[in-house]
Amino acid sequence: MIAPIAVWVNGSPALNGIDAMDRGLNYGDGLFETMRLSNGSIRFLDSHLVRLRRGCERLRMSCPEELLLEEINRIAGDVQDAVLKIVLTRGHASRGYRPDASAELTRILSLHALPAEISADALKLRWCTMRLSRNEALAGMKHLNRLEQVMAQSEWQPEEADEGLMLDTAGEVICATAANVFIVRDQVLITPDLRYCGIEGVMRAQVIGAAERLQVPLSIEPVWPDDLADAREVFLTNAVRGIRSASSLAELRWSETSMASRLRGALNL
Amino acid sequence: MIAPIAVWVNGSPALNGIDAMDRGLNYGDGLFETMRLSNGSIRFLDSHLVRLRRGCERLRMSCPEELLLEEINRIAGDVQDAVLKIVLTRGHASRGYRPDASAELTRILSLHALPAEISADALKLRWCTMRLSRNEALAGMKHLNRLEQVMAQSEWQPEEADEGLMLDTAGEVICATAANVFIVRDQVLITPDLRYCGIEGVMRAQVIGAAERLQVPLSIEPVWPDDLADAREVFLTNAVRGIRSASSLAELRWSETSMASRLRGALNL
Repeated sequence: MIAPIAVWVNGSPALNGIDAMDRGLNYGDGLFETMRLSNGSIRFLDSHLVRLRRGCERLRMSCPEELLLEEINRIAGDVQDAVLKIVLTRGHASRGYRPDASAELTRILSLHALPAEISADALKLRWCTMRLSRNEALAGMKHLNRLEQVMAQSEWQPEEADEGLMLDTAGEVICATAANVFIVRDQVLITPDLRYCGIEGVMRAQVIGAAERLQVPLSIEPVWPDDLADAREVFLTNAVRGIRSASSLAELRWSETSMASRLRGALNL
Repeated sequence: MIAPIAVWVNGSPALNGIDAMDRGLNYGDGLFETMRLSNGSIRFLDSHLVRLRRGCERLRMSCPEELLLEEINRIAGDVQDAVLKIVLTRGHASRGYRPDASAELTRILSLHALPAEISADALKLRWCTMRLSRNEALAGMKHLNRLEQVMAQSEWQPEEADEGLMLDTAGEVICATAANVFIVRDQVLITPDLRYCGIEGVMRAQVIGAAERLQVPLSIEPVWPDDLADAREVFLTNAVRGIRSASSLAELRWSETSMASRLRGALNL
C-alpha cells in the first residue's frame, strides 16, 4: 500500500480515524472530489466545488464550502504537486438508512503523491465486462457508491491495459473506470450523454468549455460500441491525469492525437 | 444519535476508529449483515454466514468466517436481545478503485439496542419516488452501496409511514427500503424476483423455505404495482424485525394476516 502523505478529519490530523458508525462507511452516503495540485495551486478548484455543491444539493446535505476552502488552503498551501482528495459524508449516526439531520458531516482531506504514470499517453484500452447501472436520480454525481468501478478495475492487471471502457446495462458506452471518454468522428467531438449514469467529470466540463470557445463542433449524445470503430481519435479525461490519447481498444488502433493536443493547449495542461 | 452498545474493529474494541483510507468508506467496497440476537443466540446465523460468504465470492474477497464466528461468540455471548451488525470491507489501501489483494479485510462488529418499534404490525406503507437501479452483477448482495435506500428513506418522516416500497427503474416492485415484500393472491404466496436488483434477505429465504415445507404454493416472479391492488394479504420480512403484516399502501387496505401468522408460527418467530 502507498500511504497518503497526510490525512485530516474535520480539520485535524486523523490520529483517531473515522467513527465506525460513519454513514460514508456503512452506506456510501457521501461524495468525493479528487483534485490535482499543480505548482502550489489546485487546478479547476472552482469546478470541483461547483460539482460538490450540486452533489450536496441532490443528496440533501449542507455543503461546508467555507470550512473546506479554509482546510484546503491550510493543508495544500505549501505543496507543489500532489493529489488532494476530499471525502464528505453524512456523518455518523444511529444504525438505519434514514439520514439524521442533526449529524455533523464528516470532512476527510487526504494528500497523495502523484500517480507514477501521470503523463502516460497512447493508452491501451480494453472493454470491461462489469456494466454500470442506470439511475437518473444518482447519475452524474461523484458519490461514494463505487462498487461497479471497483469490480471493473479488478478485471485486468495493470500490465495488460491502461484503462477499461464501461458500458451501461443498456449497452451504451459511458466512461472509463476512472475517466470520461471523448471521440472525434467527422470533425465532431463527441462525449457520452450521462443522463442515466456516469460521473460528470471536472476535466470533461473543462474540455466541453474549451471546445465551445474554440468553436469545435461538439455533441453530447448516446455513444455505442460501434461508434468507437468509426472514431478517428479517442481520448480520456480525468482531473488528476488531464487529457490522454488512446492508441488501442481491442482490435482498434488510433494514431490521431491532434484534437487532444489542441484542447490540452487551450486548457494550459 | 443512538450510539451502539459496543463496537469492535478487527477483534478489538474500536478505540481508534476506522482508517480514513478504508475502501468501505471510499467506495462502499464491502458487505454487511444485520442480525437479531434473541435469548442469547443469533437467529438464522447460518443463513447470514451463507449470504456473507456468497457475497465475498462475488466481490472476490476472502471470507474470514472462522475469525468472525469467534468474534461473534466473544461479543454476543452474554447478550440476550440486541442487533448485531457485521461490516466487512476490502480493508485500507492506496487511493484508486483497483483492489489490493494484499490488503487485510476490515471487520467491524457492532452491537445495538433493538429498535423501539420492533414488533409493530399493521404497517402503513407508502410508495417511494427513488428507484432502484438494475445490475445483475450486484443484485441480491448486501453490499455497502446503499445510497438508493438512504435517499428513499429521506422521502418521508417516520410518523407518516412505517416503510416505503421501492420500484426499480423498469417499474417492477422490488422491496421495501429495509425489508423484502411478499403478497398473497389467489392463495399463492408471491415475492419479487431479485435478478436485477434488491437484497436477498435472510428472512425472505427463511419464509421461502417455510412455505415450501408447508406446501404453500409459492412464486418468485416480477411483481408490478398493480399486483398490490390484487393482493389479499401483504407482509414485509427483515432479519431483525421478522415478519410484519401491512395494513395500508396509499389508498389500498388489507386486514388479512393469516399467511404471515402461519409462517411466523412455522419459523418460531
